[in-house]
Amino acid sequence: MVIVMSEESHEYQVKVDWTHDRVGTLSVEGKPRIQISAPPEFDGPEGIISPEDLFVAAATSCFMTTFITFTKKMRIEFKSFSCDGYGTLERVEKGFQFTKLLLKAKVTVESEELVPKAERAMELAGKYCLVSNSMKCPTEHENNVVVG
Amino acid sequence: MVIVMSEESHEYQVKVDWTHDRVGTLSVEGKPRIQISAPPEFDGPEGIISPEDLFVAAATSCFMTTFITFTKKMRIEFKSFSCDGYGTLERVEKGFQFTKLLLKAKVTVESEELVPKAERAMELAGKYCLVSNSMKCPTEHENNVVVG
Repeated sequence: MVIVMSEESHEYQVKVDWTHDRVGTLSVEGKPRIQISAPPEFDGPEGIISPEDLFVAAATSCFMTTFITFTKKMRIEFKSFSCDGYGTLERVEKGFQFTKLLLKAKVTVESEELVPKAERAMELAGKYCLVSNSMKCPTEHENNVVVG
Repeated sequence: MVIVMSEESHEYQVKVDWTHDRVGTLSVEGKPRIQISAPPEFDGPEGIISPEDLFVAAATSCFMTTFITFTKKMRIEFKSFSCDGYGTLERVEKGFQFTKLLLKAKVTVESEELVPKAERAMELAGKYCLVSNSMKCPTEHENNVVVG
């Protein structure tokens, strides 16, 4: 059970409109529209962002923004951040479900002394990533900090 | 515990590259790139798709594609489909977490006899939506089928 700790809450609203076949348009007010569709393995066309992509993208991008938040709190600088996110979908009792997320992140910092600090910011980002924490499947992390 | 029922699995890969401030680029191979950032309430700029938007969008768009799959299985036609998705983020023990999703969907069909069939397809889509089923929070549905 989830225990709500304060009155602070935020609401996010999106809209999806079907256009044709298995394709539709995703709209968030005041933001660029995105064409979405079922992926090829579920009879959709090639080349269009799928709900499955969005699921993995939500966790991967949240890891980035949470990492940035911790670097600001810790007052550390980094030169680059990139993260590959992999989501595994498996057939379970009730159709399909994501059973695993793997985030492989790479951060570049200017000096050796920043390496353990950036590693700590990545650990904390993994722990407090609100999107991963809202998903049933476990998230594995492979964090890599280099000086460059 | 999740019981895996078969060898069938699918993998989804995305990449996020930090560009500046709390902003980055989301890439899925062969698909359009999307700019992403922390939302304004978490110190990001206005007008850019956030991880929180992506989370709600994943469930809302998956409900659409799953609905379409059931209409094809049931061999029923529909004239339009749209769905508003609302995600509620609340502060819990470990930072924030999505605690509720609400999907308000509207489907238009050509005749009265198609109404209960479309309603059934929406029910099944809610039950088998693989993205919602991969999230911890409950998903509420308000389904509306009209003749038009």
